[in-house]
Amino acid sequence: MILEQFDEDAAEKAGAATVSPPSNFGMVDAGVYRSGFPDPANFGFLRSLGLRSVVYLCPEPYREENAAFLKAEGIRLFQFGIEGNKDPHMSIPVDAIMGALRVILDVRNHPVLIHCKRGKHRTGCLVGCFRKLQNWCLSSVFEEYHRYAAGKSRLADLSFIESFDVTCMRDCLLRLIYHYHGCLQKSKRLVYNER
Amino acid sequence: MILEQFDEDAAEKAGAATVSPPSNFGMVDAGVYRSGFPDPANFGFLRSLGLRSVVYLCPEPYREENAAFLKAEGIRLFQFGIEGNKDPHMSIPVDAIMGALRVILDVRNHPVLIHCKRGKHRTGCLVGCFRKLQNWCLSSVFEEYHRYAAGKSRLADLSFIESFDVTCMRDCLLRLIYHYHGCLQKSKRLVYNER
Repeated sequence: MILEQFDEDAAEKAGAATVSPPSNFGMVDAGVYRSGFPDPANFGFLRSLGLRSVVYLCPEPYREENAAFLKAEGIRLFQFGIEGNKDPHMSIPVDAIMGALRVILDVRNHPVLIHCKRGKHRTGCLVGCFRKLQNWCLSSVFEEYHRYAAGKSRLADLSFIESFDVTCMRDCLLRLIYHYHGCLQKSKRLVYNER
Repeated sequence: MILEQFDEDAAEKAGAATVSPPSNFGMVDAGVYRSGFPDPANFGFLRSLGLRSVVYLCPEPYREENAAFLKAEGIRLFQFGIEGNKDPHMSIPVDAIMGALRVILDVRNHPVLIHCKRGKHRTGCLVGCFRKLQNWCLSSVFEEYHRYAAGKSRLADLSFIESFDVTCMRDCLLRLIYHYHGCLQKSKRLVYNER
C-alpha cells in the first residue's frame, strides 16, 4: 500500500531511459536545486524535475539551445549577471545575490534550478546566503560550500557569505517565514511573503 | 501574496536560534536526507526537519542520547548494521542495502534521515544504489559519491554501486513507480508500492 496514487505510464517511461543530471547537481531544499551549466544531454533529467524557473548567475547571454529548451518547457529564466573571477579583491555584487534570493524564496517559482558555469562559486555564494537566511551556523554553511567547490574554494566567497547581512534581506522581503506545509512533508521551509 | 499559509509563531521562533546541521548533511530527494552521525548540537536542526524515521547503517548500538532524542520526537529507528572498513576485499552486504532501500522508498517513512558515522561510505553506497533506481547514469552517481566522500572515495564502494542489480531490487519491490504528486511540487519521485 502506498499513500499516494501512481501513474503506470510514467512508471513505464521511467524504467526505460537513463537520465544524466548536470555536473555538480544537488538538491538545496524542497523545490530548489543547484548545478553547473546544463548540457543538452541533461535536458531529459531537467524535464523530470518539472522546473518552473531557472536562476542563471553569469553575465553572458544564455546559450541558444538552453534558451530553446526553457522556452519549449515553459520554464522562466531569471538572469543575475555576476562576473566569474579569481581576483580576491573583486567583490560579489550584493544586489544580484539579493535579487536571486527573492526569486528562490518565492514558492511560485518552484521548482527552481540555480546554476552558473561550474556550480561552485557563484552558486555557492547564493546558496550560502540562502543557508544564512535559514539560520544555519556558519561552519555548516562553509562545509557545504567546500563540498561543491571540490578543492577550489575561494576566500573572497567565504568572506562574502560571512559578511552577508541577513537582517537587511529580511527588511527587503518584509517578511520571511517558516511554515509547515502538508502533502507528506512535515519539514519547515522558508518562503517569501510579498505583501 | 504567497501561495501557502504562514505561521507567525514559527516565524518568530525561526528568527531566534541558529541551527547546526549534522556533518556532511545534504538533501537526497524530497523527504530524504543524509549526513554523518548527529551530535546533540544537531538535535534542534533535526527537529526542524520533522523527521519520521532514521536509517542507521552501523552495527554498533545506537548512542543513548540519540536514541532518547528519537524516542522523545516519535522518530522510528531502522538499523542495518554494515561494518565500516577500508579493506577492498570486504564486500558490502547487499541484503542490508536492499532492506534500507525499502525503508527509504516507502513514503510513509518520510521525512527520513540516512546516516552512518561520517556520511561518506556506507551512506554513499546506499544513496548510490538509490540513484541507480532513479535511473541516474553511473558517472553522475559517482560524482555525487565523490563529493560526499571528500577525497576519501573507496574503490570497493564504487564497484559495489556499479554491480548493484536494480532489476533484482525491482522484483523485490514488486513495483517501483514514478508519479507526480501535488502540493506545489511538479517533480517526479520514486515510491514503493507494497501490494
